[in-house]
Amino acid sequence: MPLNTDRFLADLDTVRRIGAYKTGVHRPTFSADDIESRRWLAGRMEEAGLDVTIDGIGNVFGRHRGPGPHLLSGSHIETQNYAGWLDGVLGVIGALELARAGLPVDVCAYCDEEAHWGDFIGSRSLIGEFSEADLDAARNRYTGEPLRPALEAVGLAGRKRITIDPARYKGALEMHIEQGTQLENAGLRIGVVTGIVAIRQFRITITGQQDHTGGTTMRERRDAGLTAVRLLGMLDHEFPRVCAERSVWTTGRIALEPNAPMIIPGRAEIVFSFRDLSVDVMDRMEDCLRRVVAESNRRERCPAVLEEIGRSEAAICDPGIVKAFSAAAESLCPGAWQAMPSGAIHDSQILARKLPVGMLFVPSIGGISHHWSEDTKREDLIMGMKVLEEGARRFLAS
Amino acid sequence: MPLNTDRFLADLDTVRRIGAYKTGVHRPTFSADDIESRRWLAGRMEEAGLDVTIDGIGNVFGRHRGPGPHLLSGSHIETQNYAGWLDGVLGVIGALELARAGLPVDVCAYCDEEAHWGDFIGSRSLIGEFSEADLDAARNRYTGEPLRPALEAVGLAGRKRITIDPARYKGALEMHIEQGTQLENAGLRIGVVTGIVAIRQFRITITGQQDHTGGTTMRERRDAGLTAVRLLGMLDHEFPRVCAERSVWTTGRIALEPNAPMIIPGRAEIVFSFRDLSVDVMDRMEDCLRRVVAESNRRERCPAVLEEIGRSEAAICDPGIVKAFSAAAESLCPGAWQAMPSGAIHDSQILARKLPVGMLFVPSIGGISHHWSEDTKREDLIMGMKVLEEGARRFLAS
Repeated sequence: MPLNTDRFLADLDTVRRIGAYKTGVHRPTFSADDIESRRWLAGRMEEAGLDVTIDGIGNVFGRHRGPGPHLLSGSHIETQNYAGWLDGVLGVIGALELARAGLPVDVCAYCDEEAHWGDFIGSRSLIGEFSEADLDAARNRYTGEPLRPALEAVGLAGRKRITIDPARYKGALEMHIEQGTQLENAGLRIGVVTGIVAIRQFRITITGQQDHTGGTTMRERRDAGLTAVRLLGMLDHEFPRVCAERSVWTTGRIALEPNAPMIIPGRAEIVFSFRDLSVDVMDRMEDCLRRVVAESNRRERCPAVLEEIGRSEAAICDPGIVKAFSAAAESLCPGAWQAMPSGAIHDSQILARKLPVGMLFVPSIGGISHHWSEDTKREDLIMGMKVLEEGARRFLAS
Repeated sequence: MPLNTDRFLADLDTVRRIGAYKTGVHRPTFSADDIESRRWLAGRMEEAGLDVTIDGIGNVFGRHRGPGPHLLSGSHIETQNYAGWLDGVLGVIGALELARAGLPVDVCAYCDEEAHWGDFIGSRSLIGEFSEADLDAARNRYTGEPLRPALEAVGLAGRKRITIDPARYKGALEMHIEQGTQLENAGLRIGVVTGIVAIRQFRITITGQQDHTGGTTMRERRDAGLTAVRLLGMLDHEFPRVCAERSVWTTGRIALEPNAPMIIPGRAEIVFSFRDLSVDVMDRMEDCLRRVVAESNRRERCPAVLEEIGRSEAAICDPGIVKAFSAAAESLCPGAWQAMPSGAIHDSQILARKLPVGMLFVPSIGGISHHWSEDTKREDLIMGMKVLEEGARRFLAS
């Protein structure tokens, strides 16, 4: 049962047609097209000889019937709205192809990584960290619709939810598109992921006094927008002093009120986040942020309040898997790969709580993802599949 | 015919009931309540012995029947939406009271200073600077409805539009609320306006590259929001070096796209404006802005484009009127007045193109205007009326 990259590409092209939108796909979790794609996948898994279940949270799980040691492999099959054809699906079909190539692999499409209904509800359920109370609380993030009736509507209510036994697995592997331009810009074909970065996200709320721009002297003003600009200027100045080589930090959102040309802003809201693999570096950056806000409050007339609004821990990839993927990449595309952190979040960071994990990246053309124009060269998809298989074999043999 | 401040206050209280909203007023131009207030005003003018016209643009004009030299006095009677009871109306009723006190005053409610249908359409029409083509082009700024059918609907279409003969007037006087906190904070009761400041307003558009915050290294990013913060930081640093004592500058609007917490902003739009009485100072500030944008374009990866989107010239008040108002204030409230520029725009700046103009301010409680809670102490309204009358008499005698 050799690896068959034609079959792998043909399956990617087939599932692309379910919910097609322009050159991409619109397959939000539990939409009719999403359910069709899950049933199609279950059929392919059965053909591959796996023991298949679509479970009570929507995970499509194909259990290998032979002896271990086993690997777990997969990704997600639903998409962001009007998004790309490879984000998630690549790792699911890649895992399926591993099983078809004879590897002792359980294949899983972890449900709803794209967070239509919550945060990682499928992979958290699979590792036993998504309670019935969590399920009761889950709601569609766009419509507010509760999850339970949605599961009922698609015929999944009342089904058992699968949880894995970590002892069954030597590790968990996920292939994914990079969603960035680092590989493309460096002319590389494979990224061996060293870890998924931690993310800390903060809201900074600055309160001033809304006033007429003409009638209020500079001395009288409490301009919340100006305090925001000064605070962000300090962050721009201070963060390079505490960051590491791969750290990133971003102000994605600045919202002034009333945001009218001729009115002094009475309120400013900033959302600021930063990412790194290292807890030490994350702590340094958080400390820097807290000191900058404190300094702003010492200098400025408009008080700034800092709140943490999101936090995810880093997941460090298993050194044995990184070594196996690196050796596979060096043998199949010598010099055309690099080790790199994943800046984006993936199901592997949830699985890492229970299992050794590893990820492979293939280049994203123009770095585009979460958009229907997302794409990857076919030769890079093939290279990804080959490195995944070769790496899996090397890791199993290690 | 002595000045009667009880009558003046009673009229303010009467017109306040037309379109009352909470403690304020909602009387947008050409609404039913606005037309009612114009008819009411025309009636009061007739009682005062003036020769009254509501003209083809909505100006309510009461012409003094006696010999000159004449003064023109007034303000506007319509309000901002759900706004205050004194903004504009104070100057109209004040002018009416001047006429009733026997002064040779033509009283006018200049239509639509509050810009529901355009910029100063009433006062521009009155000085002959609002053409039929301008009228054709005018539209409601909230609904887009053209002005002509609106004039027809309220029965003003086809009426002659009054234009003034500047030779008839020694000057034009306007009493208004301050719309700021300078008088209140200084414990003063009267502001003698030295001029209405010039305003220049600019849009700065910064173009970057929208990207995923996780997948894009700091080195690769073209973050339009970050360039905006740096550019605004430079303005904050440089403007104090070129401004004058009373200059103001404001970033009222910052709009990032997509303004999502986890996406690098691909575009930023800033609206920045500044005000001063002096052309030299205005030119220095504009030069500073242009140099800062040029420097940003030298330093940054995201290009910034500067466009002028608004410009009004300063109107310097007539020294004779300033002198007469100052002497009147000093005699009626010694030590409790100051000379000051008007940061807000007023019809007087249009009239200043043809006539010597002067303005008086009374304090705004808490500096509030353009809000239904706008208010002024009754003793300050009375003081304003007295200084207006005494100043008008002194100016006429000068």
